[in-house]
Amino acid sequence: MKIYFAGAIRGGRDDVALYFEIIETLGQYGRVLTDHVGNPELTGAGEVSSDGEIHDRDLAWLKEAEYLVAEVTVPSLGVGYEIGKATEWGKPVLCLFRPQSGRALSAMIAGSPGVSVREYQRSEELREAFDEFFGSRPRVI
Amino acid sequence: MKIYFAGAIRGGRDDVALYFEIIETLGQYGRVLTDHVGNPELTGAGEVSSDGEIHDRDLAWLKEAEYLVAEVTVPSLGVGYEIGKATEWGKPVLCLFRPQSGRALSAMIAGSPGVSVREYQRSEELREAFDEFFGSRPRVI
Repeated sequence: MKIYFAGAIRGGRDDVALYFEIIETLGQYGRVLTDHVGNPELTGAGEVSSDGEIHDRDLAWLKEAEYLVAEVTVPSLGVGYEIGKATEWGKPVLCLFRPQSGRALSAMIAGSPGVSVREYQRSEELREAFDEFFGSRPRVI
Repeated sequence: MKIYFAGAIRGGRDDVALYFEIIETLGQYGRVLTDHVGNPELTGAGEVSSDGEIHDRDLAWLKEAEYLVAEVTVPSLGVGYEIGKATEWGKPVLCLFRPQSGRALSAMIAGSPGVSVREYQRSEELREAFDEFFGSRPRVI
């Protein structure tokens, strides 16, 4: 099973340690194609490759993945773009949001019929959400 | 000609005065379906309608529009989502970005083949960008 994990990069790296924990947990359910998103050495400046190369590589991974899981507490254009594509392509999308951040989640995400939103406080709570999200769907081999 | 203008709402209202100016200028080229985005009374808390209603209304407007113009300096999940949909639907997308903000634009936006990016400092510079963006394409009546 292939999972695309999305988190903010140029939008801001405040949550990188959390992204790392989420990717670790997701790794118990399938292969995470985008584990660089949790790399603390990847700064808000982004990667060395050209923007076009990053875009094309990431969209190819998103097409290849069966599921999109996104941490959406830090607003990010790239994460929103990927959610827009994934819902258009009919892929199941799980968005993880921490209300104690004081932010309000975008209506385009919270109100999208193709998106499941899970509010949480700590990464330890996510296993239950993942069991439900992946378990209620047939595993693809 | 119908234009969909996208700017951050729940992502942050720092640029609302600028959105208003851009919408005023765009109004000289066509009808802006989303002029509420430039309303200073619309706060980061968002609108009163339910998220599902906002999502469905905005996507219907985006489908109806011939062009998407987005101010992308303040990162926004909703704006990213709309750019993802619009590029998927083959609509021309113009993204306006102010590098002096100190931010770096998402690689998914800057590297998207369906997106034209225009860097600028002040809204007065945008008329030239709009002339080019709309002028090089047939006007739809």
